[in-house]
Amino acid sequence: MKLFFRIKLLVLVSGLFFAFSTAKPVRVVFFGDSITRAGVEETGYITQMARALKQKGLGEQYELIGAGIGGNKVYDLYLRLEDDVLSKKPDVVFVYVGINDVWHKSSHGTGTDPEKYVKFYQAIIKKLKAQGARIILCTPSVIGEKNDFSNQQDGDLNQYANLVRQLAETEKVELCDLRKVFVDYLKENNPENRDRNILTTDRVHLNEKGNGLVATTLMEALLKK
Amino acid sequence: MKLFFRIKLLVLVSGLFFAFSTAKPVRVVFFGDSITRAGVEETGYITQMARALKQKGLGEQYELIGAGIGGNKVYDLYLRLEDDVLSKKPDVVFVYVGINDVWHKSSHGTGTDPEKYVKFYQAIIKKLKAQGARIILCTPSVIGEKNDFSNQQDGDLNQYANLVRQLAETEKVELCDLRKVFVDYLKENNPENRDRNILTTDRVHLNEKGNGLVATTLMEALLKK
Amino acid sequence: MKLFFRIKLLVLVSGLFFAFSTAKPVRVVFFGDSITRAGVEETGYITQMARALKQKGLGEQYELIGAGIGGNKVYDLYLRLEDDVLSKKPDVVFVYVGINDVWHKSSHGTGTDPEKYVKFYQAIIKKLKAQGARIILCTPSVIGEKNDFSNQQDGDLNQYANLVRQLAETEKVELCDLRKVFVDYLKENNPENRDRNILTTDRVHLNEKGNGLVATTLMEALLKK
Amino acid sequence: MKLFFRIKLLVLVSGLFFAFSTAKPVRVVFFGDSITRAGVEETGYITQMARALKQKGLGEQYELIGAGIGGNKVYDLYLRLEDDVLSKKPDVVFVYVGINDVWHKSSHGTGTDPEKYVKFYQAIIKKLKAQGARIILCTPSVIGEKNDFSNQQDGDLNQYANLVRQLAETEKVELCDLRKVFVDYLKENNPENRDRNILTTDRVHLNEKGNGLVATTLMEALLKK
Repeated sequence: MKLFFRIKLLVLVSGLFFAFSTAKPVRVVFFGDSITRAGVEETGYITQMARALKQKGLGEQYELIGAGIGGNKVYDLYLRLEDDVLSKKPDVVFVYVGINDVWHKSSHGTGTDPEKYVKFYQAIIKKLKAQGARIILCTPSVIGEKNDFSNQQDGDLNQYANLVRQLAETEKVELCDLRKVFVDYLKENNPENRDRNILTTDRVHLNEKGNGLVATTLMEALLKK
Repeated sequence: MKLFFRIKLLVLVSGLFFAFSTAKPVRVVFFGDSITRAGVEETGYITQMARALKQKGLGEQYELIGAGIGGNKVYDLYLRLEDDVLSKKPDVVFVYVGINDVWHKSSHGTGTDPEKYVKFYQAIIKKLKAQGARIILCTPSVIGEKNDFSNQQDGDLNQYANLVRQLAETEKVELCDLRKVFVDYLKENNPENRDRNILTTDRVHLNEKGNGLVATTLMEALLKK
Repeated sequence: MKLFFRIKLLVLVSGLFFAFSTAKPVRVVFFGDSITRAGVEETGYITQMARALKQKGLGEQYELIGAGIGGNKVYDLYLRLEDDVLSKKPDVVFVYVGINDVWHKSSHGTGTDPEKYVKFYQAIIKKLKAQGARIILCTPSVIGEKNDFSNQQDGDLNQYANLVRQLAETEKVELCDLRKVFVDYLKENNPENRDRNILTTDRVHLNEKGNGLVATTLMEALLKK
Repeated sequence: MKLFFRIKLLVLVSGLFFAFSTAKPVRVVFFGDSITRAGVEETGYITQMARALKQKGLGEQYELIGAGIGGNKVYDLYLRLEDDVLSKKPDVVFVYVGINDVWHKSSHGTGTDPEKYVKFYQAIIKKLKAQGARIILCTPSVIGEKNDFSNQQDGDLNQYANLVRQLAETEKVELCDLRKVFVDYLKENNPENRDRNILTTDRVHLNEKGNGLVATTLMEALLKK
């Protein structure tokens, strides 16, 4: 970690002189499931973040890389961590996983036990730390948009969100509490208590507005430091 | 329903004169699963209700009958409605079912779809109405006592509780909102956010205090009319 | 049952004289799930049976009635037994259910426990017997057509088929062992061990050939007596 | 691989002279779940193998190491492969996993999808190969001992056994077909078609006879080369 911060400091210090010529952009990898895979599409959250960074004149300073694969659970991320993240030598890694770990319990009988979720998450964090990456954990957003915690998986998703919050604390890494952002948004903006079509198209996958909410939230987390 | 109320009125009017000699007690059947089956044990909620009625001097006026069988879901109640409830010609029927309908989804793969839950519940209500019984629907209490809606089944249980609330409304029968009572109690009385041992022994089945809370709540519902 | 056979005898005895004018056709109800619902379509098994009966010159003697509803499990049949079967005063009832009871365990977490399957099946048989109907139980056909018992639900489906076989024996009703017929057929006619497209379109629902196999098998069962 | 065989040859050639003084024993690691964890107990299959090797006078030539942990699925093995297997520099590794991958689908909703099972298994094999270990894959034994493929998970277990058989072929590693051995044994020795108490105590975990059958089968596989 020390080395990493020194380099950043160097960039900042020397920025005035040759920022445009030599400053290597901050490489940000988004590591996740189908939501992240769709993040690089036209209206996806990664694309929206890239656009927003450009508007802020920060376009040259960040390189955003999507590393999402549909159906991925935490252990799938662990399996491809080396190839899809570490090999890219990222400066920042957003980890956004958990929805399939919960969802597939009832849809396929192949979700992830909470203890295993934590164990594989810790193993991912350990390897990311070893490479000196800045790590930002995202809590899993939603499975269903009803705002009175009556979506089938709300209890379980709250449980896994709690696990991510605890991981951020015990592992001393950053947290981007997407679930809280979504839940708060839906309390305000879902008066008919619909289960979809506010931020998602199908209770899980994000529509443009949902992608926008994720983009704003992750952007804020990214620029905090 | 009219006939029924007339009879009750008769009982009330004539009560002063020959209450002990001729007044048939109000027969109350508790129709449910293992929680209700345990309700007739020493510290069970039905036993506690009987004790409380006696203390109020109402012991002679009510006959409480437990009709709970472990593992029962809504369709199991429907199957034994004739034998275990209608045949007893009850004046009042508490229906308290839904926990296994939700729980067995993940533990055995044999829960009940929400639409089927409603369908069988309606069929039960229809037959109870046909016999003129006073019907009181109880929302399913808890699977896990954590008070931030992070018990695995909280979302689903909230959904089924909503279904029961809607049924009470559309079917114009009484509601005893046990789940709300439990959730409110746990908000106040579970500061460590434990998943059991406040009102249950094992996240589902009631300890003495839990039985007490059900007894108080059902008692109030029973005496409301 | 006695009355029923006497009537049939009468029909046979008097058949020569006024068969066309007075003989009421044997009313056959097919009670089941989506497979049976599709049975009344152009290439469905019920339609194929009707055609075959006509070809044998028996068209006037049988009235075939489909009573299948998609997604139905054994307890759904029980719930609508009165309205959809008993009210039609059938002479013969084929019961063909069990696939969703097994399948929905893994796809929705809402399958049926084996003991409950038996219990509701017995309740159906009891009511059908009370009305004097001839009862023919069909074992559940297939979920997946691989012929080495390596379809995910094969073990469970074999278990439920065994339960139906035992029910036929203990309840002394007729058995039409569809599952055995399918398994035997696939052993011979599925050399590439495909999971669909031999007798089904999607591992479960029957293509024309599958419907033909059911039609032939049920026809034989129907005409046995 | 070449180096490895040369060493073995050396041992054989020079064995007459200094077998007892210098020959490093062949280190065998058994990598698996609770069945393997119990394998090191008094009547466990690893203990029985050790005893049998001693009786054959091969006690000094093999070192058997249990590396089983209860509840493990294929991805759990992958997670601890480095620490529990590779770090021990084994000469031979038996991989015996799959029962929880199938079983936990219905008991917890947290089984393993077949494609993921293969993917993680391949990742394990790849790393074992990289270290030059001799690899022997075991098909998952049983969940239920009924011998007509009517145990609930038989279809799925057959599927996963097929996957292991295919892996052995495509990955060109050895196969120890435990499932076939169990199925064949039970055909002969379970006349009452019981679901337990022939080779297991509880449908899954091995009794002494079951452990003996595994010991014999693995021994044969081990000494084949």
